[in-house]
Amino acid sequence: MEHDTATLTGANLIAGGESRRRDETFAAVDPRTGQEGSVRFHDATSAEVERAAAAAAEAAGVLADLEPATIAAFLRAAADELEALGDTLIAQADFETALGETRLAGERARTCGQLRAFAELVEGGRHFEAIIDTADPSATPPQPDLRRMLIPVGPVAVFGASNFPLAFSVPGGDTASALAAGCPVIAKAHPSHPGTSELSARAIIAAAGRSGLPDGTFSMVQGRQPEVGRALVLAEKVKAVGFTGSSKVGRALFDLGTGRDEPIPVYAEMGSLNPVFVSPGAAAARAEEIAAGYAGSMTLGAGQFCTKPGLIFVPADEHGDHLVEEISERLRDHEASPLLNAGIRQALLDQLGRTKQLEGVETVVEGPTPGDAGWSLAPTLLQVQLDTLLATPELLEEHFGPASIVVRTASERMLEAADALEGSLTATVHGVEAEFDELDELTTRLREKAGRLIWNGFPTGVAVAAAQHHGGPYPATTAAQHTSVGITAIRRFQRPVAYQNAPNELLPPVLRDANPLGVPRLVNGEVTTDPVTR
Amino acid sequence: MEHDTATLTGANLIAGGESRRRDETFAAVDPRTGQEGSVRFHDATSAEVERAAAAAAEAAGVLADLEPATIAAFLRAAADELEALGDTLIAQADFETALGETRLAGERARTCGQLRAFAELVEGGRHFEAIIDTADPSATPPQPDLRRMLIPVGPVAVFGASNFPLAFSVPGGDTASALAAGCPVIAKAHPSHPGTSELSARAIIAAAGRSGLPDGTFSMVQGRQPEVGRALVLAEKVKAVGFTGSSKVGRALFDLGTGRDEPIPVYAEMGSLNPVFVSPGAAAARAEEIAAGYAGSMTLGAGQFCTKPGLIFVPADEHGDHLVEEISERLRDHEASPLLNAGIRQALLDQLGRTKQLEGVETVVEGPTPGDAGWSLAPTLLQVQLDTLLATPELLEEHFGPASIVVRTASERMLEAADALEGSLTATVHGVEAEFDELDELTTRLREKAGRLIWNGFPTGVAVAAAQHHGGPYPATTAAQHTSVGITAIRRFQRPVAYQNAPNELLPPVLRDANPLGVPRLVNGEVTTDPVTR
Repeated sequence: MEHDTATLTGANLIAGGESRRRDETFAAVDPRTGQEGSVRFHDATSAEVERAAAAAAEAAGVLADLEPATIAAFLRAAADELEALGDTLIAQADFETALGETRLAGERARTCGQLRAFAELVEGGRHFEAIIDTADPSATPPQPDLRRMLIPVGPVAVFGASNFPLAFSVPGGDTASALAAGCPVIAKAHPSHPGTSELSARAIIAAAGRSGLPDGTFSMVQGRQPEVGRALVLAEKVKAVGFTGSSKVGRALFDLGTGRDEPIPVYAEMGSLNPVFVSPGAAAARAEEIAAGYAGSMTLGAGQFCTKPGLIFVPADEHGDHLVEEISERLRDHEASPLLNAGIRQALLDQLGRTKQLEGVETVVEGPTPGDAGWSLAPTLLQVQLDTLLATPELLEEHFGPASIVVRTASERMLEAADALEGSLTATVHGVEAEFDELDELTTRLREKAGRLIWNGFPTGVAVAAAQHHGGPYPATTAAQHTSVGITAIRRFQRPVAYQNAPNELLPPVLRDANPLGVPRLVNGEVTTDPVTR
Repeated sequence: MEHDTATLTGANLIAGGESRRRDETFAAVDPRTGQEGSVRFHDATSAEVERAAAAAAEAAGVLADLEPATIAAFLRAAADELEALGDTLIAQADFETALGETRLAGERARTCGQLRAFAELVEGGRHFEAIIDTADPSATPPQPDLRRMLIPVGPVAVFGASNFPLAFSVPGGDTASALAAGCPVIAKAHPSHPGTSELSARAIIAAAGRSGLPDGTFSMVQGRQPEVGRALVLAEKVKAVGFTGSSKVGRALFDLGTGRDEPIPVYAEMGSLNPVFVSPGAAAARAEEIAAGYAGSMTLGAGQFCTKPGLIFVPADEHGDHLVEEISERLRDHEASPLLNAGIRQALLDQLGRTKQLEGVETVVEGPTPGDAGWSLAPTLLQVQLDTLLATPELLEEHFGPASIVVRTASERMLEAADALEGSLTATVHGVEAEFDELDELTTRLREKAGRLIWNGFPTGVAVAAAQHHGGPYPATTAAQHTSVGITAIRRFQRPVAYQNAPNELLPPVLRDANPLGVPRLVNGEVTTDPVTR
């Protein structure tokens, strides 16, 4: 398929216009070959970032007072526009990420599904979390009429992730949830897929235009230099940040945002180890099934998922030996896959080089060979004993890419292993019914360490659902209280406001007596969509 | 009434025991006379803080799995124990704060009401925010069974405020909401009321004992030295902080908490200017009523409320002149009231001295006179024109205590005035029906600046209600998305966890098929208390 088409201009898309203030440019690179594309992309200047933020601040007032139906129509229009890009979008994304057309088509479906799920949420109005307590003059002290709802926080900066060029990037969950909340968005494109980002941004901008929204509703800046991201987080008008990416960058942005004169929340989702625990019963009963699932999960998208399982605790018995052998066989047969960019590839090679040298680390599947083409790497499997893991902090660092560590442990030490872990997005337990008593305690301990607990499954594949939680204790994220997937992700970009004794005419529609929007409200302790009488 | 009774020991109360490791001690001081009480209080050492945190971490696991009914019974027992202290508590608080027995009895009622309101919330189970999406194997990709709920974040440090020795101190809203969430609490007593804190802490500890909760559920440390608070925020086991107090200390603790290796949320409520806008119509129609309300609100508790109105925008016309004269008369008649401690008094005197010297500042009511007894100060009223306010950043700083600034402005410049303000806990509008069109825009702008909007009333007196929001944009708080009053305050101390395809036996009761606790759950998009079938 074609890529780098004439529709790409390489410009920053700011408040409805194109802008190219900086002379230095960069190009997308094909991970399969290391060759550059033909379009030159312009990093944004600080002045361009400021302009996007100012336009967003102006748009914020308009968006905050829109009818939910208008926001919903805009989100659906954005999904429609993304789909209307057809093969152009998939070809560009595949050229820039080498993730493959099947995966990318699935990711587009997920991305559009997310936008439409937020449209539905917004129409329902539950996200306003409206609460009304009517006046009680007989109380001591007398209670005023109080009405509370959530309103948008204002302009949001969204940092696209390299590993999901759609679902966690410019048109992804952070953007969808911020727009759904009524917040203007300034998206920073990831330099590994600048063209995909430009196409996606144009789709959202077209949708905003069709919906009659102000120009500042959505802007996109390119940023290969870290200074672009810094300028965005420091822009005074920006009120919250959504980020998916590495611990190093996530923490740096968090520190910048919380260190501002006016601190702002930085919701950084930074990936994690996603430990998998295999019980003796499960290893004995289902070694092949677990091995197939594990090998598939750790190599999905070349191991570049935030939820890639990086550690697997396997019983130190013969069933465990068999399980490790089964995983190894599958990994040895697995072909090398291209990583997203040269930096990720080199970082993994360097880290693996160091890890393999550590005392007590056995290399089970060797991984990269000198002959790999482009940025491709074959999967690596290392093995240690639990005591080595407990004594070696480097083994508790994420190896981003197709690499994983087997930890052999006596089953009675699984709890000790769980307690030694840091925060993760997920934790997985494979077990059988006869072991529920022991596994109950393990599950409880793992709850302290992870945002999502998976039973007899694998952590990759994060369903977009109301009950989803994609988050977890630090260092998995900088805000364990929030999710970046699922409809509750909207809560990151809202804040409450309460009205006391306000006349009906001065209340927002959500809180008016008649409930003209028909939203569910907690009125004097009961959830209802009925009107309120004073 | 008696105070500093034999029931006080001056010890830190850590995990069920008394501890006095530090030799230096301090005493409570009577604000009416400046005289010290007889009991010596011991600041906690870092080791004592660590011990409290370790015990809290141990208790956390137990609390997280308690039945809601047990937590509710504990909260009610705490309210009962506080009430059982009777006059002893009121006398001690009055001795230490000089806030008066009537006010303090009211504050105790509010404090106990808060604890009981959280008990009711916990029993209802809405705070778990349970969401269940049952499996859908026919979806693309197939959707797993996902069940999400909020769980406690772990040990919480609570910093008591000086100005509400009960409702925002050791047994106050932060403690009540954290315990309701199932988080152990380590309260840092405010050195302005150490004895009140010790009595309150003993009441909560007795309630925990009666409810069979572990010793680490509640500890209290004394801390006149800043290092005690620092040690508490830096304690590794502490997972969140609630604070009410000054901007300077709040921001310092926020920076400490967010700067940790593992950052933690610091919910600091730091007070604010609480601007009041009086429309021309309101000034013409109700000058006496507004003057009486304003003078009362700004001198309540010697002007030491977080919600004290610090700025009043008054029309630059003759009705405005009349309103200012009416306020002034009432303030001149107001007797000097003792401030909470020598530091607050001196800080206000110093700040007023500087403010009165600023160009364009007119002193309308002089305030402090040399003859005031103890730490008493008479109220001060200053006046400026809007242009002076806009040009003088010092005038946008809170004067904590009985002092306020009148800003005279043409009514058409009220919007400009609103835009110039920083974040506040509240904003108030006095108007009449004929002005709704103009006031609609003012209300909308003020929503960007405040957490609570009050119509024809005054900001002091924060009702404890489900719809309450006591928060606001920085610098009013460090977390505009949260409240420290009202049942939604519990959300600060919870985080979500999702279970994927977990067997019923390994799920927490809240998420089990049968819904044994009968909590409301969002099941496949519908709120219900019904059981779930797989």
